[in-house]
Amino acid sequence: MPDPRFFQAAGPFSLSRLAEIAGAVLADGADGDYRVEAVAALDVAGVHEISFLDNMRYKDQFSSTKAGACIVHPDFAPEAPEGVHLLFSQYPYKSYALIAQALYPERGVAEAFVSEQAYIAEDVQIGQGCVIEPGVVIRSGAKIGASCWIGAQSVIGENVELGEGVRIGENATVSHALIGDYSRLYPGVRVGQDGFGFAIDPSGHVKVPQLGRVIIESHVEIGANTTIDRGAGPDTVIGQGTWIDNLVQIGHNVKIGRGCVIVAQVGISGSTVLEDFVAIGGQAGLAGHLRIGQGARIAAQTGVMRDLQGGQEYMGYPALPIRQFMKQVALLKRLADKKER
Amino acid sequence: MPDPRFFQAAGPFSLSRLAEIAGAVLADGADGDYRVEAVAALDVAGVHEISFLDNMRYKDQFSSTKAGACIVHPDFAPEAPEGVHLLFSQYPYKSYALIAQALYPERGVAEAFVSEQAYIAEDVQIGQGCVIEPGVVIRSGAKIGASCWIGAQSVIGENVELGEGVRIGENATVSHALIGDYSRLYPGVRVGQDGFGFAIDPSGHVKVPQLGRVIIESHVEIGANTTIDRGAGPDTVIGQGTWIDNLVQIGHNVKIGRGCVIVAQVGISGSTVLEDFVAIGGQAGLAGHLRIGQGARIAAQTGVMRDLQGGQEYMGYPALPIRQFMKQVALLKRLADKKER
Amino acid sequence: MPDPRFFQAAGPFSLSRLAEIAGAVLADGADGDYRVEAVAALDVAGVHEISFLDNMRYKDQFSSTKAGACIVHPDFAPEAPEGVHLLFSQYPYKSYALIAQALYPERGVAEAFVSEQAYIAEDVQIGQGCVIEPGVVIRSGAKIGASCWIGAQSVIGENVELGEGVRIGENATVSHALIGDYSRLYPGVRVGQDGFGFAIDPSGHVKVPQLGRVIIESHVEIGANTTIDRGAGPDTVIGQGTWIDNLVQIGHNVKIGRGCVIVAQVGISGSTVLEDFVAIGGQAGLAGHLRIGQGARIAAQTGVMRDLQGGQEYMGYPALPIRQFMKQVALLKRLADKKER
Repeated sequence: MPDPRFFQAAGPFSLSRLAEIAGAVLADGADGDYRVEAVAALDVAGVHEISFLDNMRYKDQFSSTKAGACIVHPDFAPEAPEGVHLLFSQYPYKSYALIAQALYPERGVAEAFVSEQAYIAEDVQIGQGCVIEPGVVIRSGAKIGASCWIGAQSVIGENVELGEGVRIGENATVSHALIGDYSRLYPGVRVGQDGFGFAIDPSGHVKVPQLGRVIIESHVEIGANTTIDRGAGPDTVIGQGTWIDNLVQIGHNVKIGRGCVIVAQVGISGSTVLEDFVAIGGQAGLAGHLRIGQGARIAAQTGVMRDLQGGQEYMGYPALPIRQFMKQVALLKRLADKKER
Repeated sequence: MPDPRFFQAAGPFSLSRLAEIAGAVLADGADGDYRVEAVAALDVAGVHEISFLDNMRYKDQFSSTKAGACIVHPDFAPEAPEGVHLLFSQYPYKSYALIAQALYPERGVAEAFVSEQAYIAEDVQIGQGCVIEPGVVIRSGAKIGASCWIGAQSVIGENVELGEGVRIGENATVSHALIGDYSRLYPGVRVGQDGFGFAIDPSGHVKVPQLGRVIIESHVEIGANTTIDRGAGPDTVIGQGTWIDNLVQIGHNVKIGRGCVIVAQVGISGSTVLEDFVAIGGQAGLAGHLRIGQGARIAAQTGVMRDLQGGQEYMGYPALPIRQFMKQVALLKRLADKKER
Repeated sequence: MPDPRFFQAAGPFSLSRLAEIAGAVLADGADGDYRVEAVAALDVAGVHEISFLDNMRYKDQFSSTKAGACIVHPDFAPEAPEGVHLLFSQYPYKSYALIAQALYPERGVAEAFVSEQAYIAEDVQIGQGCVIEPGVVIRSGAKIGASCWIGAQSVIGENVELGEGVRIGENATVSHALIGDYSRLYPGVRVGQDGFGFAIDPSGHVKVPQLGRVIIESHVEIGANTTIDRGAGPDTVIGQGTWIDNLVQIGHNVKIGRGCVIVAQVGISGSTVLEDFVAIGGQAGLAGHLRIGQGARIAAQTGVMRDLQGGQEYMGYPALPIRQFMKQVALLKRLADKKER
């Protein structure tokens, strides 16, 4: 059960109510009136707690779980231990997410307040129902939409605009940016600083003024300590519903489409374009001025030096279609083993 | 045209004035009195805006640009569309940089002020014309040169010295450091904390006191959320005019020469020495105690485990001269393709 | 000699006193009454300064050092220059660490104070002898042990607990976490924010509430700008005496054992388990849901995609036992050279 010091449950809910919330179906014999109070992992869940099976690595934990209820794909029903109330779902992880959201709703910003220890320029516009914490700096001309939350010690630059329900974590900085509704920046995020732009010159590199913006569309998540430089002239753009993890670097002029997933420590160099639904594994790096096609999947640590077609999976340094990379890995192993003998 | 909410143009300028600023030459038929108000990218520039062609990927955009004026190498004059006023330059990107600097000058710190909400020890020396924002902490004995800008919530440690015109971004921390004139730290930079120094011991690693400093010479740029540890005994040194991008890690005792370029997410391990004008691509990693020769270029994601001679280009894991690496990549591909058939 | 602006020596000490502190032995002819005032590197040390030889790269500096005293393994005594007072140690680096700690003790928090410019909720418990700097935010229900140091502009979340002697660097954020005695977070560290958890869905990724905590045991070090996400349900755990360098990413549910060493820019994906005494070189990446055996050593930039047995060294992308990787590297080089000829 989540530690009540950090998480307050909104329940209990009946199992049938949760099935409804989750787009799931009560299995034969499951009691729709069963009372669910909390979520928990398979190996620690107990009575009145609900768990889920999504990753087959944890199948044994499922077979021996003491959870009162469990969300599972119907194919795995035969592996269930006696007595557990099952919810069937085609997408158990998504169903779990929806149930966890219901049981542990995010605290809203109902208790709106603007700290007297925030430094807010006179002409700043602040919407209804915002929380602005101590130490926050909001510079001249900024517009803060309704129901925003701006964490302590963050700095919002001149004329920056935040949409409705935007959350800015503590110690973050935002400048030269327009941020869409319900987007969320985690602590320590840096948005809008100068890109890495200079003309190389033996007598001292010449700085190129960075004259673009950062456009973050709606429902975007940006992980802790991630850095997103503003455009050099064109804008840097993060598309709607894209999720970016911690410590990611996004260079100037990069355009990221909708629904992309970018895992921690990825680096995307200047002017590269990601079409919609691209997924990039941790620590992968993309050179500048590339185009990555819709739905491409790039494995962790891959080094991308050319345009990539969409709909395929890539890996390697330099990047190859993953089957081709794996073939090379296997071949090299075989040759080395043969040499050995 | 840059968004006037974020960038105020200082112009207009005549084209002949800009040619002078840029070290460029008016092409035959270009009107020296043509009025230039703004810069813009080739594909969006319009009348009274100036653009440039430097990267051949964008040649088609050049041929169809609607820009009023354009900076280009004379060799590409034949590709220019009708009616655009051309400036010829051997270094179009550098010329563009100089023009953009003229049109969009950085705001100075003319309106010097020291926030009453900054926490400044009594014996701190602060030069003429500084801006010190709210929440800044400056500890005892620090010396701040003239015309410095210290962004909100930053912390300047005991006895730290900043030269003239130094800019420290918001939420940055600096300790045990001397920083030269006109150097610039972006938001979230960490300079001067303990290096990763300990003696391994089964009963608990033994911390090695880190007793060196960080010396940052003049005209250095250090990108957002980059970390530079202080020396363990010797100093960590960043040479004059070196540019460091975001999320870079510089270990203790590292010496970086003049005019180096270090792209985002590079890691340089303790005690490694870079001679002057070394360039390192994103996410490359250098082991400790190495020497990298003058003008060496290290490709993105390269893993450097040995000293490298200057004047050459390297790539691979472990690093090889780039031609050798590319030959291995091609060979492995051929072998795998043959196996396939 | 360390710059007295930044480091104050507590000495002088006699050489025999230092031998005792260091677990070292006076060499024949060394003067136990010799007065040692400072530490210094071999190439710059002078009279009344002590140095050490640990890394054979610096043997020539040892042979020509002007240091008054030097710590060295007895095997290297013959290489010593005339007149230097030698201390013999089986572990010269550890001995140096202990001597440097004695000569340059960390300043305690004797001058305890809580800044009036800190924002501390009414029900926060603060132990004896703490320093809480300006701009610090401590939210409701937090418990701060005795002798803690919380640097300027840091934010301690609701109900967070810090043990005794914990140090939190400036501009750091901690939430949903319990931190053990004498652990230390450097500036800009992010602990306890949401992990990267969502169910992929074409109509918009569905956020999975992150309902676990971060448990940091005692004597842990966490480097600048490192990010540690809280668990998704289970906790994220960092074991006792583990050292983590700068810019490291630790995903949700990761369990790290005791005495591990994790170098800068490493990324560890969700739910991976490190047993005790694992060492990971810079920029290495570990996929999720893996188990890494006790004492495994993973070289810099390695990409780990499978469980690894303990007690061995690994390198490569994907990871291989290091001998096997090096054999492949050598083989590929030979094949390419042959092709060349």
